[in-house]
Parts: sequence; C-alpha cells; structure tokens
Amino acid sequence: MPYLLTNATLATMEPASTPFGLVEDGAVAVADGRIAWCGPRTGLPPQFSGLGAVDLGGRLVTPGLIDCHTHVVFGGDRAREFELRLEGASYEQIAREGGGIVSTVLATRAAGETNLLSEALTRVDPMIAEGVTTLEIKSGYGLSIADEIKMLRVARQIGRARSIRVITSYLAAHAVPPEYEGRADDYLDEVVLPGLDAAFAEGLVDAVDGFCEGIAFSPEQIERVFSRAETLGLPIKLHAEQLSNLGGAALAARYKGLSADHLEYLDVEGVEAMAKTGTVAVLLPGAFYTLRETQVPPVQALRDAGVPIVVATDCNPGSSPLNSLLLALNMACTLFQLTPEEALAGVTRNAARALGLADAGIIRSGCRADLAVWAVSRPAELAYRIGANPLYRRIHAGVLLS
Amino acid sequence: MPYLLTNATLATMEPASTPFGLVEDGAVAVADGRIAWCGPRTGLPPQFSGLGAVDLGGRLVTPGLIDCHTHVVFGGDRAREFELRLEGASYEQIAREGGGIVSTVLATRAAGETNLLSEALTRVDPMIAEGVTTLEIKSGYGLSIADEIKMLRVARQIGRARSIRVITSYLAAHAVPPEYEGRADDYLDEVVLPGLDAAFAEGLVDAVDGFCEGIAFSPEQIERVFSRAETLGLPIKLHAEQLSNLGGAALAARYKGLSADHLEYLDVEGVEAMAKTGTVAVLLPGAFYTLRETQVPPVQALRDAGVPIVVATDCNPGSSPLNSLLLALNMACTLFQLTPEEALAGVTRNAARALGLADAGIIRSGCRADLAVWAVSRPAELAYRIGANPLYRRIHAGVLLS
Ligand SMILES: [Zn+2]
Ligand SMILES: [Zn+2]
Repeated sequence: MPYLLTNATLATMEPASTPFGLVEDGAVAVADGRIAWCGPRTGLPPQFSGLGAVDLGGRLVTPGLIDCHTHVVFGGDRAREFELRLEGASYEQIAREGGGIVSTVLATRAAGETNLLSEALTRVDPMIAEGVTTLEIKSGYGLSIADEIKMLRVARQIGRARSIRVITSYLAAHAVPPEYEGRADDYLDEVVLPGLDAAFAEGLVDAVDGFCEGIAFSPEQIERVFSRAETLGLPIKLHAEQLSNLGGAALAARYKGLSADHLEYLDVEGVEAMAKTGTVAVLLPGAFYTLRETQVPPVQALRDAGVPIVVATDCNPGSSPLNSLLLALNMACTLFQLTPEEALAGVTRNAARALGLADAGIIRSGCRADLAVWAVSRPAELAYRIGANPLYRRIHAGVLLS
Repeated sequence: MPYLLTNATLATMEPASTPFGLVEDGAVAVADGRIAWCGPRTGLPPQFSGLGAVDLGGRLVTPGLIDCHTHVVFGGDRAREFELRLEGASYEQIAREGGGIVSTVLATRAAGETNLLSEALTRVDPMIAEGVTTLEIKSGYGLSIADEIKMLRVARQIGRARSIRVITSYLAAHAVPPEYEGRADDYLDEVVLPGLDAAFAEGLVDAVDGFCEGIAFSPEQIERVFSRAETLGLPIKLHAEQLSNLGGAALAARYKGLSADHLEYLDVEGVEAMAKTGTVAVLLPGAFYTLRETQVPPVQALRDAGVPIVVATDCNPGSSPLNSLLLALNMACTLFQLTPEEALAGVTRNAARALGLADAGIIRSGCRADLAVWAVSRPAELAYRIGANPLYRRIHAGVLLS
C-alpha cells in the first residue's frame, strides 16, 4: 500500500542544495518500495494527497545508513588477545594463546554456517537498530575455496534473515593462510583465483576486494586478482595505504575501482589518480582508533581534489571491533575533522557510490525507500552525540519498521 | 521474595582473588534488596537451596555499573557548536552563535524542571540500558542559587523516575557566570557558598565538587568551597589537572577528597598526595577523546602508588557528549592502556569508592543487590567490543528488571 510520510524534516543529502539537502516541513510518498515523491509538504502533487499519512512529529528523516566496509562474518572473538596485549604480553605469548588473524581464520573454518550466521547477527542487529539499511560484507577469514564460499553464503543469508540489503565482497586476498606461508603466489593460483570463479558462479560475489600491504599482498599480486575480476565483469575495491604507501589507491583507480579504503598513508599521486576515475575514499576511523594510529588520512587533499569521502565501521574482530556506524560518524568528525555534513554524506550518498548503487543513499524520487527516522531536530546531532542511539523508526524497501 | 540466581559466571570484582574475582558456575542469593550469599553453586548453604531460582544460562554477572562523574542535567545541546568548529568557524563566530559553557548555562536557566528532567532522561536511559545502577549527577550549569538548586532537584527526581541510585554533587564552582565576569570571589561569596548552605539544607547535596583550572577557579578559591563543605560534614572531590597542573589533586587530598578527576597533567607529588589519603583517580577518556588531548594521565604512576583508578563518562554537552559507560571502558583501555580488569574495577568497585559507597560495586554478601547480567562469556568482552550493548538483564536493589 502506498503511503505518505509527513511532518518531517528531510535531510535528503541531495548535493548542491541546502546543507544536508535539508527540507523543512517535508513529505515523502512511498510506493512499491520506492520513493514516489519527496519535497516540501506544500508542494505535494494532488495524486499523492489522498494517501494514508504517517505523521513523524517533526522528526528528522535521512536516507537509511549504508555501512560499505565490514567483516561481520567470522568465528571466535579476539577479546582474550585484546586483554593479553593490555596486560603487556609479548607477541609470542599472544601467538601461543592463538592471537592474530590466524586465530580468526581457524575459528571461522571450524564454524558451521548456522553458527557463523547467528554470531554475525549479534553484530548486524545493533547496526540495524541504528538505522543501517544496506550492509557490505566481506569474506576473507576462510582463505580456502570452501571456507570463503561458506562466508559469502552466510552473508547472503543475513540479507534474507533480516530486513537489510547485503552487498558482498570476495576478499580471499586478505591474508596468506598458514599452509601457504611464504608461497603467496601459489595461494593466488590455487585458492584466490579459482575460488573467485567458483564463488562468482554461485552468484555470491558483488565485488572483489584485496589487502595491498607489506604484511599481505604486493601490488603485482593484487593486480592478478583485479585482472580476473575484470574478466568476470566484477567491480573492484582495495584495502590500501593503511600502514604504508604501496600505491594501492592508484592501482585500484587504474582498474576503475569503486573505492580505496583506509588511506592513512595516501599521497598526492594517489589522491589524483582516485579523482580521475571517480574512485571514492573510504575512511575507517574505528581501525585508526583501535590501532592508536597517529597518521591521519589526507582529508583536505581529498576534498580539494573532489574525491567523495565515505565513512564505514570496518567491523572486524582484530583492528576494529566496532558495531556502531553512528560512532564511526562521530569518530570521523573528532579524529579526522570531517564536518558533520561530510560524515553523514559518507554513510549515505557517498557510501552508495562505494557500493556502485545508484538507487540508494539519497532521498530522491525513484530511489529505494530506505530511510531512517531520528528523534533529533538537526542532522549534526547524529555525529555529535557519542554512544547514543536516537533512531525512532527505520524504513527498508518501503516497509515501515519499528 | 528472596530468590536465587544460578548457572552464572560471577565477576565479583572481589580484590586479591582470581582475575575479576571470577567464580565459575556461581550462584547469588538475593533477599531484601541485598546479596544474602554468593559463591560457587556447590557451596550454597542449605537455607538458600529452597529458593526460587533464575537460571542465567551460563551468562556473566558483574556488579551493576557505577558512573561516578556525570553532568547529565542541562538545557540545550551543543551540536551546532560541534558543527561550527568542524566547519572552521572562528572563536568569535561560535561565541556569536552562542557556543561554549555560557550557552548551556543560559539554556539551563531558561528550562523548567519538567523539561530538564525529560531531557536528562534521554541521556540516563541509554546508561541504564547498559547496566548502570548508580549514577552521580553534578550541578554546575545553573550558577545561581536558584538554578543550582533546580538542577539538584532534577537529579533527585531522576532517582525517583527510574530504578537507579542517584548521588549528587554540588558544583556551583564550575565556572564564573557572565554576570560575575572578573569577580570570581564575589561569585563565591554571593552564590557558591550561600548556595551550598541552601542546597544542603534542602537535602540535595551528597558531595561538593569544583573545577580548579586557569579558566575556572584557583586553588585558593576552591579551598574556600572545600572549607565550607568540611564545616557541613560533606565529602569533597575536584576537577583537577585537566588542562594544566595547579596542584588540585593534592589540594583535594588535603581535604581527604573522595576523588580527583581528569588528571591528564597530574604530577608525582599529586599522585603521592592522593595515595596517602586514599583519594581515588577518576579518568575521563570521553573528554580526552573529544578534546583530542594527547597528554595521557600518569596511569603507571597511579598503579605504582596504589591509587585506585576509576573510569566515568563525564557525560556533558561540551567536552564529552558521551552516553555510554561501556564505551568509556573501551576508551580507557584503548586510549589510556588500562587492562580490561582495571577498567571494569573502575566502573564497579573503585567507582563505589569515588562516591563513598561501601555497599556497592562488588558482588559480596551484605552489599546491595545491584547487578548486571551480560550475554558474554568473559568480562574482557565488555571492554573489547565497541558500540555494542550485550546487557541481558539488570538487577537494581534486588529487583530483576528486563
Ligand atoms: Zn577491512
Ligand atoms: Zn566533569
């Protein structure tokens, strides 16, 4: 049934209009899961005036939030490692007690799909409760063909188990698993590339990701993965310039990448390459915070070059056990000095670009009716408050949820 | 009706026992709002074995959390100021648009008790939802006798409106209000001291606090306030060494203070003075984070001297709009390198000391049955996760709440 949202302030995030694309006393007509019309109530076309109205009591409506970079599917947790590190344990002690990404890989391999799903939902549900309507989920803790596929199946199941749109990324090029230590190229040949073909054939892959870093894969190795993605017609993205500068962002741009992510060590050449191809910059303040990083991504250079800036949680058990996109919003402002408007665009309009979605992240007629209604009066409050959740209601694909 | 909690892991926070005072397969007998007995289930005395049992399914029980430093009662918000600052507005622009503590003072003065209460509850409710059972609330945004009293009345009302124990602090010596600019001593004579007498006479004051800093009050001025508190038999505490070192912590210790709070610039003499009198150190990582402070409090010196360390939100509209004590826990570990055990002691056992409470913050027979039940298996998870709320149930004064 089509319906009308009224008595709302709309932060449409429509660019080049008022700040936040703000519309006071706005209305939104919803039909068939889409926004049929939106604008100031006084301009409502006659064909919508008879629709049943939901009075939002003057509350703020934003596009549903989009978390475009997460690793929410994994086995185990790393609380013990967190504790050991703070107790001053040596690297060897932590490794002996099973720390690091290897511990997550082993736990993920050992877990069944049902278990992985129920564990992942404990991380996804708080995000949904904060107004997230689209969620990207990466593989990358299986590191075998079967286990990467298992992770992606679980990711798809999340999209069926909850009222949320899930976009997957194939990230077998996340780390070299123990059984391939010192043989990264063999791992690419025997797992990453054939695994991509297999996962793609099963319809499990929306994009291809990698980790370009000294401790992971070289640009040459990443390029082999991207080249296969290109053959399959899949878009790419990359974990780049997180701990050092290997030119990963420029590499992603060369493959017309959707995004380059992290970017603390991005240089001017990388910024320019991204600007040229429209590759967006995904900033992950949760990892910056957790790792006590001090090198801040080059926000002003990204602004100057017109590279769209995105903010995501990077939710993962090691470097960012962060379950709150609203907190990432505050961190992006506090730690990276984004303005609240930039930060909110980073979890709506620009986050949609990072996922290649043309119909989300904005309140515009024709787009999906994925919306969040907030008990706040101005959008800046969403970034200002820390550890509060002012979500009033969430609308996913036109369905008004409590 | 007395009852029994069973099938639980207890983090009793009993010192000098196992880490976190952990008891596996524990049980707690609750009667008359108190803990009648606690320990391993196999040791349950016969007189409790007939009680009706609540099976906690193996979940973790901690003492109810204690937030011992908050400013949750205030009018207005500072989201616009947050936004302006990030947009690069000058100090003058922000002042012109009504920024700074003065804006909060004006909004607080203008608000009625009903309004202040309902606004404060939007901040208190998320804390309660995270397992907080005791909450300290300061005045300090009224800065007139009537408005300070109004704030404290609202604080008391919160304790009646919600199942939470509220402890108040009189903080008229928070800032010099505009009408006394340049006349801090007149403000003390005409407002702070007579206001303390008046608020005390109304039963509104549990402790007396102040802000010892170049931008607030000198040690000599604070001493006048402490001296009056002493006369009234009220314990004192102090905002000290946040932005510089004026010897505030040592001053608080001289008056046998419950706590000195913030402490980024605390020196060895201050640490030693606190250790001698048992004045505890309240660390406020939310303010450290929000102000992008880089000077970390001297945690190792506090440890070495045996000064109990406490963690609190400092929830306030300017320097710490933080509504989550669990997030403060994570920040204390991540930013100040506390261990998860130290951080949890800082929001339970040691936080009780900061409020002078001998019957809270620990799971021990005879203490109040203020408990939090968590859907986690180990206490470190509470500090490890960011922006998640694993609270399962809360017990306040023996009453089991959903
Ligand atoms: Zn990542
Ligand atoms: Zn304070």
